Amino acid sequence: MTPEAGRYAACADIGGTKVLLGLVDRQGRVVARDRYPIRAPRAPEDVVDEMAPRLLDLASAAGIGWERVIGAALSVAFMGDVDRGVVLSAPNLGEWHDVPLAALAERALHRPVRLEMDANAAALGEAWKGLGAGTGHLVYIVVGTGIGAGIVMNGRVYHGWRGTAGELGHTTIVPGGPLCNCGKRGCLEALAAGPAIARRAEEALGQGRQTILGEPGAGSPITAETVFAAARKGDAVACEIVEQTAEYLGIGIANVLSLLNPEVIALGGGVIGGAADLLLGPLLEVVRRYSGSWIDLEHTRIAPGLLGEDAALIGAAWLAWEVAA
Amino acid sequence: MTPEAGRYAACADIGGTKVLLGLVDRQGRVVARDRYPIRAPRAPEDVVDEMAPRLLDLASAAGIGWERVIGAALSVAFMGDVDRGVVLSAPNLGEWHDVPLAALAERALHRPVRLEMDANAAALGEAWKGLGAGTGHLVYIVVGTGIGAGIVMNGRVYHGWRGTAGELGHTTIVPGGPLCNCGKRGCLEALAAGPAIARRAEEALGQGRQTILGEPGAGSPITAETVFAAARKGDAVACEIVEQTAEYLGIGIANVLSLLNPEVIALGGGVIGGAADLLLGPLLEVVRRYSGSWIDLEHTRIAPGLLGEDAALIGAAWLAWEVAA
Repeated sequence: MTPEAGRYAACADIGGTKVLLGLVDRQGRVVARDRYPIRAPRAPEDVVDEMAPRLLDLASAAGIGWERVIGAALSVAFMGDVDRGVVLSAPNLGEWHDVPLAALAERALHRPVRLEMDANAAALGEAWKGLGAGTGHLVYIVVGTGIGAGIVMNGRVYHGWRGTAGELGHTTIVPGGPLCNCGKRGCLEALAAGPAIARRAEEALGQGRQTILGEPGAGSPITAETVFAAARKGDAVACEIVEQTAEYLGIGIANVLSLLNPEVIALGGGVIGGAADLLLGPLLEVVRRYSGSWIDLEHTRIAPGLLGEDAALIGAAWLAWEVAA
Repeated sequence: MTPEAGRYAACADIGGTKVLLGLVDRQGRVVARDRYPIRAPRAPEDVVDEMAPRLLDLASAAGIGWERVIGAALSVAFMGDVDRGVVLSAPNLGEWHDVPLAALAERALHRPVRLEMDANAAALGEAWKGLGAGTGHLVYIVVGTGIGAGIVMNGRVYHGWRGTAGELGHTTIVPGGPLCNCGKRGCLEALAAGPAIARRAEEALGQGRQTILGEPGAGSPITAETVFAAARKGDAVACEIVEQTAEYLGIGIANVLSLLNPEVIALGGGVIGGAADLLLGPLLEVVRRYSGSWIDLEHTRIAPGLLGEDAALIGAAWLAWEVAA
């Protein structure tokens, strides 16, 4: 029996609308879990005051005394300064500025607390126990309302100089293309994230194209899910939009392969979760078309992550265990 | 006096047409240097048999006994497996396949020999003693006959999974754009490297556009240098080509900033060396236009490297000193 047996990391994945809690052992197994909604506006202290007792209760209910919890880690869907454990801004939750969230959580949990941004935490999770188990070179790409990436290189998250590395969604894919939320044009996010998919459907309707997307019951307003459902019924316009989405995502992924040469690209987020059946085949074909012959595509793994919504929780646990080691 | 005083790394930068040799001290100063042409086809043994005695002579002539040489490192303009010290292929020099160049050089120099690819070595040099002196986060971008990048992250070269990281020249900037040497379309290299600049000039002439590029004495065949010379004389077509080149390079650089968030981007290669005066201003303007507001452009340094053609030699020295440490 190792000194790590029967010990756990207390982890939270704090998103814009929900919080996942978990106790995770040294093997990356989530042995107890909880989830609850979170609604804006919430003050940082309130978030911690709700989370901490829930984590303590989770341990009690699982028969785990708190002395067996070696540390904690938070994955957050916000801009953060990971080294200082500070959330810089969290527009989804309210007026947070330079919030020392890790320190607040340490006081409430009586354990060291690490902080990581969600795409990075998910990348660590998939590199540790998921699609990339054992690899040192993985990029996790989230495609949902936005597009972002977590980069694991030589087994560690790469944050860049000021912590903003991984903004794959704001690399330019089509110069002069559609306007992005960030104010630039032709960003991958403006071409292939959920709202871009919906926008293209609205445009097709506006052009009077024949599609079931405009029929009563198709859903209004149109969302990416509406488009996917119509594509599964063979709607030509919806299929065309899916194909375009795969094209842009494939170019973005091929650019990552050229620049970083990862062994594994794990895909996640709502768009992937909702349409892997439609997107994955065409996307891999596009990646092939836009990759140089020196890229070993036969052995590079590009697929949805294996850990689903646990990815960030398990990646956070890796960080907590690393501090404890 | 430190144990490192009076000691030197023996370094070579082996390119496709020339070799630079240097003895480099612990402070990164090149205290003795040599250069000579190299012509294809050359067998690996011949390359080493020419290089080794020249390095020994260089030390002698500088009054440095070989016992004061702590190690050696080679920067090579070829595909290599750096961990094994093996050159995978060197099409410019001949039929090289899996050549254990580091081991060959170790036998001839009686010192441990490190191997690194030239863009990576130059990145290390600029991060150690050049534009990025002291930074841990630098990308070195070579724009010449081709376009490549060396990535330094957390103070070390990032090679990726199979050693091919840094192929910035083969990221897609214009989907469906001009055909690249690599067989794909719309790569940065096919849009902004030297041959692409010349090709656009030929196209403009083919379209019968009014330009001094077609006048006798302008140079034939047209090269990137011809275009730069014409642009300096105010030729509208040449200026337009320079502007397009800056646009594509700027997008490529902005994509690197989004994905990797380096502190420093050092530029090198023949196109930068030959036209920094024309390209740099427009290029920085394009980078600004394609960068998100979260990129701290005020403090990010983007400029030609400071070490010129010594960059790879000095980066190689860093590696040799690291082994010796």
